[in-house]
Amino acid sequence: MADEKKAIVLGCGLVGATIARELFRSGGCVVTAADISENRLERLAAEGIRTRVADLGNPEKLVGIARDYDIVLGALPSRFGFQTLRAVIEAGRPYCDISFMPEDAMELDAAARKNGVPAIVDCGVSPGLSNLMVGFAHAQLDSVEDALILVGGLPKTRRWPFEYKAPFAPADVIEEYTRPARLIENGKVVEKDALSEPELIDLPRVGTLEGFNTDGLRSLLTTVQADNMREKTLRYPGHAALMRVLRETGYFDKNSIQIGDQTVRPIDVTSKLLFPKWTYTDGEEEFTVLRVVVIGPKEGRRTRYTFDLYDEYNRKRGESSMARTTGFPCVIAARMILSGRWTQPGVFPPERLVAREPAGGVASGRGLDSSGSLRANFDHFVDELKRRDVMIEWSAEPYDA
Amino acid sequence: MADEKKAIVLGCGLVGATIARELFRSGGCVVTAADISENRLERLAAEGIRTRVADLGNPEKLVGIARDYDIVLGALPSRFGFQTLRAVIEAGRPYCDISFMPEDAMELDAAARKNGVPAIVDCGVSPGLSNLMVGFAHAQLDSVEDALILVGGLPKTRRWPFEYKAPFAPADVIEEYTRPARLIENGKVVEKDALSEPELIDLPRVGTLEGFNTDGLRSLLTTVQADNMREKTLRYPGHAALMRVLRETGYFDKNSIQIGDQTVRPIDVTSKLLFPKWTYTDGEEEFTVLRVVVIGPKEGRRTRYTFDLYDEYNRKRGESSMARTTGFPCVIAARMILSGRWTQPGVFPPERLVAREPAGGVASGRGLDSSGSLRANFDHFVDELKRRDVMIEWSAEPYDA
Repeated sequence: MADEKKAIVLGCGLVGATIARELFRSGGCVVTAADISENRLERLAAEGIRTRVADLGNPEKLVGIARDYDIVLGALPSRFGFQTLRAVIEAGRPYCDISFMPEDAMELDAAARKNGVPAIVDCGVSPGLSNLMVGFAHAQLDSVEDALILVGGLPKTRRWPFEYKAPFAPADVIEEYTRPARLIENGKVVEKDALSEPELIDLPRVGTLEGFNTDGLRSLLTTVQADNMREKTLRYPGHAALMRVLRETGYFDKNSIQIGDQTVRPIDVTSKLLFPKWTYTDGEEEFTVLRVVVIGPKEGRRTRYTFDLYDEYNRKRGESSMARTTGFPCVIAARMILSGRWTQPGVFPPERLVAREPAGGVASGRGLDSSGSLRANFDHFVDELKRRDVMIEWSAEPYDA
Repeated sequence: MADEKKAIVLGCGLVGATIARELFRSGGCVVTAADISENRLERLAAEGIRTRVADLGNPEKLVGIARDYDIVLGALPSRFGFQTLRAVIEAGRPYCDISFMPEDAMELDAAARKNGVPAIVDCGVSPGLSNLMVGFAHAQLDSVEDALILVGGLPKTRRWPFEYKAPFAPADVIEEYTRPARLIENGKVVEKDALSEPELIDLPRVGTLEGFNTDGLRSLLTTVQADNMREKTLRYPGHAALMRVLRETGYFDKNSIQIGDQTVRPIDVTSKLLFPKWTYTDGEEEFTVLRVVVIGPKEGRRTRYTFDLYDEYNRKRGESSMARTTGFPCVIAARMILSGRWTQPGVFPPERLVAREPAGGVASGRGLDSSGSLRANFDHFVDELKRRDVMIEWSAEPYDA
């Protein structure tokens, strides 16, 4: 027991709690779950997980907290993401994070390398597994002509009018619907409206969904050289049209408007109205679907890589698929560090775990490195997810269309 | 000049100003336009119309004001409708009104008869002309099996997402979309959700619109005995679906919600956001369409009465069709009183001008009265509207479907 590694999970919302449980369940380290809310920690404590109540929004305190552990896993709201990464690097501890911070984590790469800290960021489902898939295909191909990420988490039961529920705050979903989407067209980064270019997409098991542009490429915009690359978020058809109407009307505006003698932000009114309607009830069936398609020449032959993930609410464990598919990659990455499989210091979005030059610059593309470890790292994620009943199917085929 | 009749128009918004102008243009009386806003009166004053700045929301003052005139025309917001009617009756002056008051004007019928005051209320397009049409058909038929009113005022140019503009405050439009619709089915008054039972309806010149239940029958619910009767409001297809989504989400709620340390009514936020989008620009092309269909037996033969009104923005006069079709019936009714054509005291919704027993109870149905005046009153409205380029076409045909 004395020489067991100690891990702390920061933030125990839906995903953080799933991370703490999965880390605890799979053994081999002492797990502490931390949150500002004692309430949230109670159930985890009852399951035997150590808990620690702390104001995790305070980065100075966080440095001290991190030093008490051998590894830190981050599942805090996105607005805390960057400051937490910086604090953990300052504490000199390895870090895996799913916070989806708006800032560029790579700004802390030099600090992480200086302090000898491996930090794996954006390590959820998308960003996360999608980055691994694009990065892996990128490494196998001579070059990338087209890369497409389709991702969505949806309730199984469709209810008028929105046919959607969110495992996180509606304001964060609406952020996806307002932030301009950066994508790559003809080798250049271009910006398009969020919710733009909706198209119907048929998927096995799921049926017909609608995909539209969202700003999900993030690190891939610079780590992967592609002619064309985009992320589309998936919803039931019609949802995006309603969101466009609400946005156009001004219901998503962050600027205050005057109502009598009060001022109010329309986005706050919208959050308040949508929150009760978009909240999953306990045990409500939902699913997560991720498809990544990457096309390019490989040894002179045009080749298409297709990756498919489909995961459902896990009744036996009471785990939502969104929490599973977001939390498990973070757990797997942390275990890679704990086991010594990944030791390289620096800040790494997931595609850099499977790229030929993971430590710097634009990954240069094709081929396994001589040790075969790029391929091995990808396979490791696929295998470890499979052990947790999250199945990824993928194929590489000649593609002459 | 000294013995010319004096008329005052209360409220000089879009419709009130049109009423004042039309009354002035057609001569024969001295017209005063009254409003609380001097600003609104300036243009009318420049055209030679007398003006009077007054707080028309104060019913006590209103009694005194009304006594200075021989007839009063009301075009105030609906919330002032009932108190204004009461004040004018108290002043002992004849009254014609288009305010669409939520209260039951018939409660003041006894007072009007006692004071010898003829008061014609709901005298716009719908309510207004629609009441005349239903009332006229009702008087011609043995009984009414089905009565249907379809009415809408729309911009000619359809703009995503709402394809709608309002000549009055959005809050008043939204009131139409929230107040339960009372209609008659199988001889009984039933309530249905506003916006319910949408159906596509093809109309000549206009194309395909969508009609849905709104609470527009008002006095017709008691003055006309029908097996089935309903009003449907017309909009471009899709508008009603968006309004249902906003209503369902809570954006039309009148109960305050807590946002931080403020409380706000979602309906006020919605009014604020929609107002700029739903306002007609100067000279913007719009149209008003009204179709009334009344079916029933007539001398043993099933007969269908169909009435059609279509009016457009009048470029020559710079008059919106909604202001024309709402204001002109009020002017025509006022002139009927001024000329001595209508003298009977009491409160009259328009259908009672063409019903056999206009002064009391449920109109009893079929046939002209011995003087032919019912038919003559209806023809008078049609002729006077035609003189003002508002065309009503109607027909009565055997109907065996």
